[in-house]
Amino acid sequence: MTTKGTQLRSLVKSDNTLELSLQEVEFPQPGPDEVLVRVEATPINPSDLALLIGPADVSTVRVEHSGENPLVKADIPENLMRMVQGRMDESLPVGNEGAGTVVAAGESDAAQALLGKIVGMVGGEMYAQYRCLNVYQCMPMREGIKAAEAASCFVNPMTALGMVETMRRENHTALVHTAAASNLGQMLNKVCIADGIDLVNIVRRQEQEEILRGLGAKYIVNSTADSFYADLTDALAETGATLAFDATGGGKLAGQILTCMEAAAVRNMSEYNRYGSDVYKQVYIYGGLDRGPTVLNRNFGFSWGLGGWLLSPFLQKIGLEKALELRGRVAAEIKTTFASHYTREISLSEVLSPAAMAEYGKQATGEKFLIKPHR
Amino acid sequence: MTTKGTQLRSLVKSDNTLELSLQEVEFPQPGPDEVLVRVEATPINPSDLALLIGPADVSTVRVEHSGENPLVKADIPENLMRMVQGRMDESLPVGNEGAGTVVAAGESDAAQALLGKIVGMVGGEMYAQYRCLNVYQCMPMREGIKAAEAASCFVNPMTALGMVETMRRENHTALVHTAAASNLGQMLNKVCIADGIDLVNIVRRQEQEEILRGLGAKYIVNSTADSFYADLTDALAETGATLAFDATGGGKLAGQILTCMEAAAVRNMSEYNRYGSDVYKQVYIYGGLDRGPTVLNRNFGFSWGLGGWLLSPFLQKIGLEKALELRGRVAAEIKTTFASHYTREISLSEVLSPAAMAEYGKQATGEKFLIKPHR
Repeated sequence: MTTKGTQLRSLVKSDNTLELSLQEVEFPQPGPDEVLVRVEATPINPSDLALLIGPADVSTVRVEHSGENPLVKADIPENLMRMVQGRMDESLPVGNEGAGTVVAAGESDAAQALLGKIVGMVGGEMYAQYRCLNVYQCMPMREGIKAAEAASCFVNPMTALGMVETMRRENHTALVHTAAASNLGQMLNKVCIADGIDLVNIVRRQEQEEILRGLGAKYIVNSTADSFYADLTDALAETGATLAFDATGGGKLAGQILTCMEAAAVRNMSEYNRYGSDVYKQVYIYGGLDRGPTVLNRNFGFSWGLGGWLLSPFLQKIGLEKALELRGRVAAEIKTTFASHYTREISLSEVLSPAAMAEYGKQATGEKFLIKPHR
Repeated sequence: MTTKGTQLRSLVKSDNTLELSLQEVEFPQPGPDEVLVRVEATPINPSDLALLIGPADVSTVRVEHSGENPLVKADIPENLMRMVQGRMDESLPVGNEGAGTVVAAGESDAAQALLGKIVGMVGGEMYAQYRCLNVYQCMPMREGIKAAEAASCFVNPMTALGMVETMRRENHTALVHTAAASNLGQMLNKVCIADGIDLVNIVRRQEQEEILRGLGAKYIVNSTADSFYADLTDALAETGATLAFDATGGGKLAGQILTCMEAAAVRNMSEYNRYGSDVYKQVYIYGGLDRGPTVLNRNFGFSWGLGGWLLSPFLQKIGLEKALELRGRVAAEIKTTFASHYTREISLSEVLSPAAMAEYGKQATGEKFLIKPHR
């Protein structure tokens, strides 16, 4: 016996087009340590967009078929085709995380224990009506938690906790975060307030400052203010933050943070050193809201690092036991610290609508989409 | 009893000028663990220039006094003055390393053992006729080694060994080096050949390729060639090098290396991953031949790091015992692996000559200067 259902697919073709389609597929029955989950809610995160629409130009989207088997196409600029060589002509399922009800379970005790429960899930292929996966990819929810509340229980919550854990493991004592009013940024504020960690929030707009102030954030700096350098340096000197997580990636922001960290460190130096302070300063780029080049004016000495940061390798590094500890905190606080808010609920076929694509394809949109695959 | 002698000083003044002068100073008698060394040879390294001339414009140099107490001045562009706020109005001695004869020694056994010996030295203030310093700042030379042969025994040799040691400590297996035909680059080739380590040399000119080929270098890539990306990717795929040391700092080179490392890693991947390979790629910037901004086109996934690298903090990190082991190798191979070649020998007062400054102030000069303070 197999379970049939709809699954969203993303396909890059050699004629420089992207195709999104819905397909009727058969989901496997769970093996001993697996469960089959009826996917009831799955969010569109910025981190889903690379696989979902990649470098395609969403302004060129056109509907090829609608109705039962919808299919839309968009053009990929010729100069960006080499970014997608590795996925050419492969029809790929999409969706990093989601939540739903366990409708079938393998014979192991761990799998059986989840039967009938609402679980959060990670592991891709979530933009579908069902997902068969290992019990370790599930986060069981407490009685009374709805799938929509658990849909975003992995990517943002674990990233927020991962940032704090990275801070501790790499011997920093306070944090800086950019795009700080994002859903993730709000969670990070709640975690840092609860754990007594100073967090310097960098935002771009007045209304973002207000969102964070409403959460109780103490250090909020606006990167568009004339006094940005001075404000950031003051906040860094006061908090001693020497570790930043940057969601933008491109442009000068990462380098500006290093510059201000160095200026804060130099305030405490008694003697001139032509190589700069010996305070180690680190910025991790974990997103790419700005796809342009990263530009560093290296006026921050030699004691610094810039690097990429991703959740999956981080979780591998800390090991299963620690990862499960962090997951336990997420599950316990899913309605408070780690609550997500959505502005739009859509069906699977609505993911393919040009109007919705124009909106979620922006990355920096104010909208946050939740897909309900059985709607 | 004190020893008198000449010492070179560099002074930044608030009227946007740099003053270089020679002054008659008294050198202290050595304490128990110290020795007084008659400085007989000391090189001008790129790493000396930041302190010696800083951001001054060497084309503006003029002689204010000549003769017994020479003094020259140069202008510092207004927009660069904030780089030197920390050293304003302080007359600073200069010179990272040198060599000479121990002419007086403190009472400890370690100090007495050096009396009459030729030693290499590190610790600044070497552009002078004498230097009083701790025995741990000295590298004793074997019988028959001349001061001129030992003058450059710290900065370049320990940096070359430090790069190899960093490679081992951070679990890489091969190296990339830019500005690879430099004095340091030549030493690094000799070390890597002796130790069986693959080294990818990046140069800019044909004659630099020939210098390295003459040393037996196997992987030489010219960054001005049309085929640079392909050549570098091939060399990286063949050697598996995932760690680079970059002397240029500014421009696109560091990012190009990461891009090619990623391309080499992707060749070995069987499955598409939108986040790129999970092969960790690291570039350390250890110099600033190009003072312009570092520009990264982040097309190399998320598993990467860029950072500053300096010898002193590295030596502190590995500890005294390991540092002494590396020093021992330098002393043993000072006439072979770690031999330095100079194209110009000058006196202390000639360091202040506008003609010499125009030459050594270029950083990328083909000339390599050795100062003989008693000439």
